[in-house]
This record gives sequence, C-alpha cells and structure tokens, in this order.
Amino acid sequence: MQPLNWGIVSTGRIAEQFVSDMAAVNNGIVHAVAARKLTDAQAFAQRHNIDKAYGSYQSLFEDQDVDVIYIGTPHTFHFQQARDAILAGKHVLCEKPITVSSEQCRQLSTLAKSRGVYLMEAMWTYFLPAIQQAKAWVDEGRIGTIKHVKADFGYPIEYNPNSREYNADLAGGCLLDMGIYPIAIASYFLNRNIDYWHVNAELAPNGVDKDVIMLAEFGEAKATLATSFQCKLNNYAYIIGDKGYIALHDFWRAKSCELYHLEERVDYFEDNRTTFGFNYEAEAVGKDILSGKTESEVVTHDRSLWLQQQMERVKTFF
Amino acid sequence: MQPLNWGIVSTGRIAEQFVSDMAAVNNGIVHAVAARKLTDAQAFAQRHNIDKAYGSYQSLFEDQDVDVIYIGTPHTFHFQQARDAILAGKHVLCEKPITVSSEQCRQLSTLAKSRGVYLMEAMWTYFLPAIQQAKAWVDEGRIGTIKHVKADFGYPIEYNPNSREYNADLAGGCLLDMGIYPIAIASYFLNRNIDYWHVNAELAPNGVDKDVIMLAEFGEAKATLATSFQCKLNNYAYIIGDKGYIALHDFWRAKSCELYHLEERVDYFEDNRTTFGFNYEAEAVGKDILSGKTESEVVTHDRSLWLQQQMERVKTFF
Repeated sequence: MQPLNWGIVSTGRIAEQFVSDMAAVNNGIVHAVAARKLTDAQAFAQRHNIDKAYGSYQSLFEDQDVDVIYIGTPHTFHFQQARDAILAGKHVLCEKPITVSSEQCRQLSTLAKSRGVYLMEAMWTYFLPAIQQAKAWVDEGRIGTIKHVKADFGYPIEYNPNSREYNADLAGGCLLDMGIYPIAIASYFLNRNIDYWHVNAELAPNGVDKDVIMLAEFGEAKATLATSFQCKLNNYAYIIGDKGYIALHDFWRAKSCELYHLEERVDYFEDNRTTFGFNYEAEAVGKDILSGKTESEVVTHDRSLWLQQQMERVKTFF
Repeated sequence: MQPLNWGIVSTGRIAEQFVSDMAAVNNGIVHAVAARKLTDAQAFAQRHNIDKAYGSYQSLFEDQDVDVIYIGTPHTFHFQQARDAILAGKHVLCEKPITVSSEQCRQLSTLAKSRGVYLMEAMWTYFLPAIQQAKAWVDEGRIGTIKHVKADFGYPIEYNPNSREYNADLAGGCLLDMGIYPIAIASYFLNRNIDYWHVNAELAPNGVDKDVIMLAEFGEAKATLATSFQCKLNNYAYIIGDKGYIALHDFWRAKSCELYHLEERVDYFEDNRTTFGFNYEAEAVGKDILSGKTESEVVTHDRSLWLQQQMERVKTFF
C-alpha cells in the first residue's frame, strides 16, 4: 500500500519534532509544509528534505498529493485551519487542545463526519508504549480497582502578557496548554464521566491562569491533578489501585512505567525509543486512514469533546 | 549532667521502636515500663534491659526515679494518661495525635503549664535530619518562594470495624492515624494559618474515614494532601517553590532529601542512620528538659492545638 502523504501546518517547535519523528513511521511520509512566510516553509523543507513548501495554508490544503494534514499552530488557529483543511477534503490530525471551546469542537466533528474525512486531536500520550503497557497492567488487574489518579504537569514560564502562554487572545493559560494532559490521563484510565470538580486557580495580573489544582470525582475514584506556569511540578502520573500502583515519570511523554506492590517495584517497562514519541500517534492515524476509518477508537471525537467540556467546567472556578 | 530517666507507657510496636532508638540517645535512658498486664511489661523490660516493669500506669507515674514519660498507646488513651502523668509531676512526650479533640489538647496544655512540667506531642518527623536539611535549603532560598506542598501518606488496611484503625470508639480513621503527617509537614514548611480547606472523603461502612483528599490554602501557597487506608500512596512530600523543589521520599520517616532545579538534582542529603529515627526527638526533648524548658520550640503547644483544630475542620467535610 502507498504510504500516506502528510502536509504540515506550522514550522514551530512542535512541528519540528513531529516531522523528525515521521522518519520512524512506516506508513507515511512528509510531502509538503506550509507557513505564513514562504521563506520559513522553505527553510523547514530544506532541513527535513520535504518536497514542497508553501507560503499559505490554503495552497497546502489544495495540494492534490497531500492526504492528511498535521496542524501544529497555537490553539486559537486550530479551528479555522482544521475547518479549511476538512473543507478541502483532507484528513486532519490537530494538536491539542483541538479547539478552545466545546462548541468549536462539536462543529469540527460534525463537519468532518459530513465530509467523510478523518479528524483526530493529537493526544499523542495515549499512543505511547509505556501508557499502553500501563493500561494493560490495569486491565490485567495488577493494581486492583483504581481509586486514585494523580498527575501534575508544570513548568515555570515567566510572566509576559505578550507571550503565547500568557496572551488571553491566544487562549493562553496553563490549563489549556498543559492542564489538558493531567485531565486526559485521568480520563484514559478512569474512562467514565466526572461527577464533580473542585478547582483552585491562581491568575496572572492579566487574568490568565498560571496555576490550577483540580480535584475530580469519577464515581468512587478520585483524581488530583495540577498544572502550573509558576513551578516545575514533579510531573509524574500515579495510577493507584487498592492492590498496587503504577508510576509514570514525565507521563505526558512517558518512556517507561513502573508497577509497585507496596514498597516493591514488581514490574518495569521501558520503550528505549530514540524519537520524541510522535511517531506512535502518526502511525496509528495512518493505519486508521489506510483502513478507511474516519475516527480514531482511542481519541474519539466524543473524547475530544469531553476534554473541552471538562476544561470549560474547570474554568468556571477561575 | 545526669541523663534523664524515661518511663514508657505501652508495650506496643511504636513503644518497641522508640525504646530501641533510646540506645542512640546520649541524654536519657529507659528506666521503667508499664502495661495493663504486668507480664507484658516484664517481657518488654527483659527484651530491652529495662530496670523496672509495672502492671499499672499509675505506679509508673508515681515512680520517683522517673523524670519523663513517653506515651505510646492508641489515641483515645492519650488524654487521660498524659493528664495523670502531669498530675504526678512528670514531664510528658505523647504520641501523635496528642489528643482526639482541640478541647482536650487545650486542657492538657493548661494543666502542664500550671504544673510547670514539659509536654510535647511526639511529631518526630520534624526532628529528622533530612527534614531539618530541607528546611535549611528553604531558608537559604534555594527553591525560591514556596507555592505548593504536596504530601501523601497511605497504606492499605483491610476493613475490620473491630480493629483500632477502623474502630470509631478508639478514634479510628486514616485522618487522625496518618493524615496528621501530611498536614504537619505542610504546616512546618508553610508555617502560617490555613485560610481555606476543601476536602473529599470516603467513609467505611461504619462511618470511619478510609480515604481523605485535602486541598488547603496557606495565603498564596497551596497544599494538596492525601491519606488512605484503601491504597498504598506514593508517600512522598514535595516542597515546591518557584525556583526549585525538594522531594522527600517516605517523608514521615525521611532518611534523605533531594533538591531539584528543573530536571536536575542539584543537591542531596542522606542521614545514613541505623535507627528508626525516634532518637532525634527523644534527644531534643531531653535537651529541653535538662535546660529547664517546659515547651518545645519546634512542637509548641500552639502547634499541637493548631493541628487538632485543622483536623476538626477537615472532619466537618465528612
């Protein structure tokens, strides 16, 4: 089968990493890249041996050789760009958060379904081998019934109201930027609705969230989650059951997982990868598309919508 | 100077550990032990080379050679036993929680002050070298301003309404038994009042708390704390500032502490002790008493009262 041709939107850091990981993907190649400035796209194409470079996103969407678009721009651009790509008949993998509201997410989902194209939010963490291993341990009953999920994701980012992270017009704030990961990991392992949220947030002088602590009830299980632009948090996820727990170091990009029974580490997995880890999701997306699917079974449209809805619930506490 | 003569109330596990650590204390020796059953006291005395064994606590309190009483019985006995010891003119080191209500704690404090005897709650964690080192790092500004304290203490204890842990009449429940440690460590590093609590608790069939998550605001700093009889938690404390963080493995009995700046471990301390660690508090108590003090500067009566008050606030959420 012919490998899929990918088209890349953006030449930023995340797009660089994604494209470098495409070398490890066996069902796709990067065919073209687009940026607002043609010279940026050309420089990026040269660095990564990409055939075509465009100075407009629309030109990329209209390239008949491109099968699937990867969108790696800041949050607030996702909706319009994903929409334009879908309208041009392209499949789309869009960085998280896929949109900045549940309403936008619902619209994109409806549009993709009506056009019969594939749409997935790039929640790459779900596809990492260590997360898959952790899930297998849970499914095998090795930690018993899950009672708690704890996950933190925080890095200090100095306050600058003009930076993307702190700019309200660009949907800045630690919740959308990093807080989506702890919520997503809790959702992945608990896989049911949240009955209750309690949130404590610190806001920057311009009103953008810089520190958020979240307590969520998923039935009898609880999640304690945190995200911060103030502090480097410990950035582990712990999946805690009544018979043991799993520790995931830097869970959002996990390379390993550890299984504990009381004080003893009874099992360990490491993926020994040399990539950032974007190849696993890219390959999964390729497999889905090549087999004719229009939706991932892992990151369903409903799951993306649910994530958007939860972030909206969290924001009501700000 | 003559070493202090200690008298031990209880022959349980904690008393065993405390007495074995007394061998490492250079300003005190164990002179006598008392239990409800004389044979228990005699067996304990024989195991630990203790001169005298009593089959009643009152006989121990009346022993003219005993200077200071260590109380290691279950929570609900502390008030009466500490009271009787103080009334007999003895100094007292009493296991935590010192009482099961703030009112009892206030009464003991008033009584000890009126009788001019020393009274301290055995919050041994505060005296551990690793905790002292962590405090020194904080005071030296090495983690900047503290924004978060996270601390968990949980061990699975099977439900049995007749066990001490789950017996409501013995003040059972994970909050008083283990939850006092996360609250105490947060208080030690943040050292100011709690403006706000939010608590989520799971109760056992008999109404005793088996899992408690606590979110506390100390001004601009937050504490996320948990305790459980359901699960082995990861049992770390993290003292997180805007310039770095300190990790304390098994913080309640910490032997080491680690200082991180972003991903890099920039400093490390280990005490290499061979004791459980009760010797540090016992020696500090001895030093206080021998220098004529009637109150610890570390575990003040006010701090014990504050801990009782916080646990009462937490219980209002149950």
